[in-house]
Amino acid sequence: MEDRQKLNLTMLCDFYELTMIQGYFEKGYADRITYFDLFFRRCPDGAGFAIAAGLEQIVQYIQDLHFSREDIAYLRGRGMFSEKFLQYLADFRFTGDIWAVPEGTPIFPQEPIITVRAPAAQAQLIETFLLLSVNHQSLIATKANRVVRAAEGRTVLEFGSRRAQGADAAILGARAAYIGGCHGTACTISDQLFGVRAGGTMAHAWVQMFDSEYEAFKAYVQMYPNNATLLVDTYDTLRSGVPNAIRVFNEVLKPMGITQCGIRLDSGDMTYLTKQARKMLDEAGWTECKISVSNSLDEYIIRDVLRQGAKIDLFGVGERLITARSEPIFGGVYKLAAVENEDGTIAPRIKISENVGKITNPHYKKLYRFYGKDSGKALADYLTVHDERVDDTQDLVIFDPDATWKRKNITNFTAKELQVPVFQGGKLVYDLPKLEDIRTYCARQVDTLWDEIKRFDNPQTYYVDLSQKLWDIKYGLLKRNGK
Amino acid sequence: MEDRQKLNLTMLCDFYELTMIQGYFEKGYADRITYFDLFFRRCPDGAGFAIAAGLEQIVQYIQDLHFSREDIAYLRGRGMFSEKFLQYLADFRFTGDIWAVPEGTPIFPQEPIITVRAPAAQAQLIETFLLLSVNHQSLIATKANRVVRAAEGRTVLEFGSRRAQGADAAILGARAAYIGGCHGTACTISDQLFGVRAGGTMAHAWVQMFDSEYEAFKAYVQMYPNNATLLVDTYDTLRSGVPNAIRVFNEVLKPMGITQCGIRLDSGDMTYLTKQARKMLDEAGWTECKISVSNSLDEYIIRDVLRQGAKIDLFGVGERLITARSEPIFGGVYKLAAVENEDGTIAPRIKISENVGKITNPHYKKLYRFYGKDSGKALADYLTVHDERVDDTQDLVIFDPDATWKRKNITNFTAKELQVPVFQGGKLVYDLPKLEDIRTYCARQVDTLWDEIKRFDNPQTYYVDLSQKLWDIKYGLLKRNGK
Repeated sequence: MEDRQKLNLTMLCDFYELTMIQGYFEKGYADRITYFDLFFRRCPDGAGFAIAAGLEQIVQYIQDLHFSREDIAYLRGRGMFSEKFLQYLADFRFTGDIWAVPEGTPIFPQEPIITVRAPAAQAQLIETFLLLSVNHQSLIATKANRVVRAAEGRTVLEFGSRRAQGADAAILGARAAYIGGCHGTACTISDQLFGVRAGGTMAHAWVQMFDSEYEAFKAYVQMYPNNATLLVDTYDTLRSGVPNAIRVFNEVLKPMGITQCGIRLDSGDMTYLTKQARKMLDEAGWTECKISVSNSLDEYIIRDVLRQGAKIDLFGVGERLITARSEPIFGGVYKLAAVENEDGTIAPRIKISENVGKITNPHYKKLYRFYGKDSGKALADYLTVHDERVDDTQDLVIFDPDATWKRKNITNFTAKELQVPVFQGGKLVYDLPKLEDIRTYCARQVDTLWDEIKRFDNPQTYYVDLSQKLWDIKYGLLKRNGK
Repeated sequence: MEDRQKLNLTMLCDFYELTMIQGYFEKGYADRITYFDLFFRRCPDGAGFAIAAGLEQIVQYIQDLHFSREDIAYLRGRGMFSEKFLQYLADFRFTGDIWAVPEGTPIFPQEPIITVRAPAAQAQLIETFLLLSVNHQSLIATKANRVVRAAEGRTVLEFGSRRAQGADAAILGARAAYIGGCHGTACTISDQLFGVRAGGTMAHAWVQMFDSEYEAFKAYVQMYPNNATLLVDTYDTLRSGVPNAIRVFNEVLKPMGITQCGIRLDSGDMTYLTKQARKMLDEAGWTECKISVSNSLDEYIIRDVLRQGAKIDLFGVGERLITARSEPIFGGVYKLAAVENEDGTIAPRIKISENVGKITNPHYKKLYRFYGKDSGKALADYLTVHDERVDDTQDLVIFDPDATWKRKNITNFTAKELQVPVFQGGKLVYDLPKLEDIRTYCARQVDTLWDEIKRFDNPQTYYVDLSQKLWDIKYGLLKRNGK
């Protein structure tokens, strides 16, 4: 297993990063200190917020960043890189600084999830992997959080490995889903690697392997009396599956004094079938028998069947979670925000676009979140220039960066910096939290959001405002560029 | 790099596979010979066909299938597996047979892409990885083939690593996209590992790193005169980007006698901007300058902009290809088709469902494709029991398995078996083709399909019929189960 965590993914870069960094190298820009922000522009599914994830894999990637001899040989074979540059790559390590929002934090469009301060060549090379890791895991953590909230306290398990977009999508998808609030997974290796509790009982093939459903159930419950969840839809859920399950529970579990058991449905009308099954189980005295369902679920279907009175204790959510089917892309981008001049002063950079939403926030920045002292709720996020300090003992007037006449007075609040230092001078300075703690932190942080932000449809837009100083710099740069 | 290909993914299984195989082991079924089919029920995007991919990674997985000491230790720690069973796992290898449709083959719903004949425990354990690999790569190869056909002969490059659902999704996604017909990728490691030609030139950050766009372009073209594709939309495509590109081409390339070059647009209205840019380039004498675009493309947008007369030579297709955004799930399933009795006879098994489309085709089968001798076109696919042989020197009447009165006389055809032996008695017996050859084979096979099957919207349904013998067995089993 260790191999998996030690994979050198340095070559998982876009080819243009290599052509550019040879260019920086040749032009003397390779060591110029640059600042890049990783941020996103809108939440998938039209949601009001997303959940940050993917940092731990970035830490591993950065620590292992190097070009092996085979990598150099491959690049030499491409015939467009100089020997001097290839030698430079052979010695390539990450020596910069990285700040990041911890995994599990609710995040909003336009704010820097990760900020990199590093020599241009280094900052440029890591672009693809940083984006890939944050985009993938934030996508799944965000989706999982929606599914878990739709289930209103019921258990949600991640069941999607077989439909995942590759092995990492299965393995790390289960990790991200756990951060977002899922209670476990079907994916064994995710338990082994990350401690995402894996579970499961039987597929239809088990039932088909025996001469009858009854015999299949009986054999299973005899073997696993403490993990007896029976798949009841192989032949006919209500006429065969549930009666056979009850019969086996009576014959095997009752004499053992076991009252905990379960049935699972993987097809058919969940609302109707679970209501009927619940009635049959209760009438037979199996009131503690849990009913699980697992057929093309997502947050919308879960919400619907619960509204219709379906009797479900556990949701196994597969393909629509592990691929985030309704919107399978988290659109994180990585943009130059500033460069350091030779005298150490910082020159902000902006990326202009016809599309106003695509104009970047320039400069080396800080990201604050304000919490109401009485409510404990998150009131607004606030971007400042790096050398500003928010004084939360005083009231603060914030304003909408696009409609500056929209002002809001923030009072009685605490200001918390959201980014934490992860690397300083190439050294890891961050204690990676345990996955369990990330999950708990995520749930607590989602609790700090008002319900209006958490709506699935048409959520309220959370404030992400700029300080006056940062706003002045941004619009000064825009003016200078004639926009 | 070798590490990546040697990864042991045995533990990438659904936990229920382990509980089931312990059950088979305890009940004496572990060595019972079973037949499983991997097939899918509908094509993504409502398409008329899909492209098979993912077999090479399955071969690697099967060859490396084993439980390491750490794997056994983890399982012991779960407290539900007997020492006898753990010892059995320690010696676990794949000893069965696998047949598969070669990568790059057009495939249709209900037909077995892979058939596994193996002891029950082995056949069950490999379910998740087989599905994951085929589902992921077939999804991307199928999507890529649509995108490439929409581009009508123009170059299509895969650009999506940063939005892929994990590292494997990026790396193997580029491989699958190449099988489907893409001409290359931006993903460096996919070139290194699989020979999917990787390329790229510059990002916006390159342009921003210099004091002016002109200087950025000039520095780049001086370094890479033979790979001079300039990103022209950092500030203003038509007022700044294209004029600066022309100026630099004139200053640097013209004196060198180089006429090949390119510009790339990553934002704005592609139809309008490329028409204008083409005019400006042509008027300046740069008629061989290629225009690339790369902004949220898929087959529908490509078809639209080409209809509107956009002047585009190369499409860089990112997030919507690497995630198959319009339908990010390939719904392959893996179902028990038969078991061998102790006397060696084969007992077919069927999975019944209220939903007629979910009823499986039982038995150990053969899959034929019929090609017209005159047209060279694929006429129909045909499933038989394993011991039948199609005689293509005679006419053959086939019939729709759901509407049996729909009959068709097949004449003047050749019958080709689609599955090839991959493993026999646990030994690899298949020469894995080179990726380049898979891609060529795919293009040729897609050419054998009638245009009616290849339509993006409302394609004709291709025949996948059953032999009379297979049909009789299937409906006999259904009757016996009271349906």
